[in-house]
Amino acid sequence: MKDDMIKNVRNDRFAKLAGIRLVEVSEGYAVTELTINENHLNGLDDVQGGVIFTLGDYAFAAASNSAGITTVAINVNITFFRPPAGKIIRAVAREINAQRKISGYRVDITDEDGSLIASFNGLGYRKTN
Amino acid sequence: MKDDMIKNVRNDRFAKLAGIRLVEVSEGYAVTELTINENHLNGLDDVQGGVIFTLGDYAFAAASNSAGITTVAINVNITFFRPPAGKIIRAVAREINAQRKISGYRVDITDEDGSLIASFNGLGYRKTN
Amino acid sequence: MKDDMIKNVRNDRFAKLAGIRLVEVSEGYAVTELTINENHLNGLDDVQGGVIFTLGDYAFAAASNSAGITTVAINVNITFFRPPAGKIIRAVAREINAQRKISGYRVDITDEDGSLIASFNGLGYRKTN
Amino acid sequence: MKDDMIKNVRNDRFAKLAGIRLVEVSEGYAVTELTINENHLNGLDDVQGGVIFTLGDYAFAAASNSAGITTVAINVNITFFRPPAGKIIRAVAREINAQRKISGYRVDITDEDGSLIASFNGLGYRKTN
Repeated sequence: MKDDMIKNVRNDRFAKLAGIRLVEVSEGYAVTELTINENHLNGLDDVQGGVIFTLGDYAFAAASNSAGITTVAINVNITFFRPPAGKIIRAVAREINAQRKISGYRVDITDEDGSLIASFNGLGYRKTN
Repeated sequence: MKDDMIKNVRNDRFAKLAGIRLVEVSEGYAVTELTINENHLNGLDDVQGGVIFTLGDYAFAAASNSAGITTVAINVNITFFRPPAGKIIRAVAREINAQRKISGYRVDITDEDGSLIASFNGLGYRKTN
Repeated sequence: MKDDMIKNVRNDRFAKLAGIRLVEVSEGYAVTELTINENHLNGLDDVQGGVIFTLGDYAFAAASNSAGITTVAINVNITFFRPPAGKIIRAVAREINAQRKISGYRVDITDEDGSLIASFNGLGYRKTN
Repeated sequence: MKDDMIKNVRNDRFAKLAGIRLVEVSEGYAVTELTINENHLNGLDDVQGGVIFTLGDYAFAAASNSAGITTVAINVNITFFRPPAGKIIRAVAREINAQRKISGYRVDITDEDGSLIASFNGLGYRKTN
């Protein structure tokens, strides 16, 4: 069941369209990465906020579903501190709390220099009975 | 300058990749739309959270830059209430406050039935001197 | 049951300590008010953020429990736009969505001039079976 | 100037009314504590959300003003995971990022057992020239 869940998570077609890779996943933990290209830019030639959000969201989805309980996002709060330096962005999601129905994840998003460019906090709703 | 700004906003390559259309923009107000296809789905066959975020974020960017002052997102809080019904999702962004450096936008995201599927609140930083 | 719930909501001892009045409550809607005094100030002589939050939170609690289903806050996002002018602050909470387990409330917080000083978005967890 | 700032922070009359103690403060870091009493309860006999927020907000204010630059809160996102066990609640604020005008703080709020009861993320606006 856990393996099925991770297989499902990997079948994320929007993450694929955005060029995001799931590079690591274990219980309550996941890492995603992205190599920036022209398609990721907004009208100001910065990386679009939706790219950074999607990178974080995919790590959050993988970490929150990793234990085998289907979990959907109910709320995300994201702060954008600065544009990324370099070409690679990475998101690391960690579970900080799990109640019966609600779970919380903190996702640090860093650039190629390892600087924090965005902080993502996700809240999941667990579809248990 | 205002027209240049809107021209810039329209040159959002990630919104284009995601198939998002900017359908209306005036001062402090913008509307974006999306027709859902296979590329927008996550591993659970729901519309990926990043798609809904990007739809809202593009409306927020258009509305917040519409007055001719370059504005970048510093924080977004998004709540996902339910998956969309139908094939079209729409985001309507409205300015709720603008101080000298900080501005606030409320973005309602609805599905084809007109039901609220997500609530997006964005905070912009205005690059004034 | 609905009346019992509202009676419970009125027995909020921290709101009482803070001098906050529940001035109106109906299904999915509530209004709270506060007259600013010395006890509400922080070290910069502004109204403390916790005062403004508590004013909004009490309106959110009243509105979200008004239908007779016990509802607890799981997430709040609050933006502070500016310090209040005048002596009275008012919060108006409105339900924007209610699913079986999760409900969403938007709370506008205004000062004596009627200007928006803070925007509060609350997410409730409904203790249904 | 730094000492003046911390002296100012200590003159928070709402934190005093709420019975919150500032127990530690250094650059980018602060700890606050509270002993729960009857005055902190809401109508469901749980600790009111505003109490937990104010505890976190006071730690955030101390940490964000500790370097001697006046900083005001612009946004806070708080998630409530569970009611506290025991009689003491503690908030630990840590700076996670500081740009020229915007700084970010993560505040962990724990109960007497050391369990995370709430996660608080604060965004400050720095009043530099």
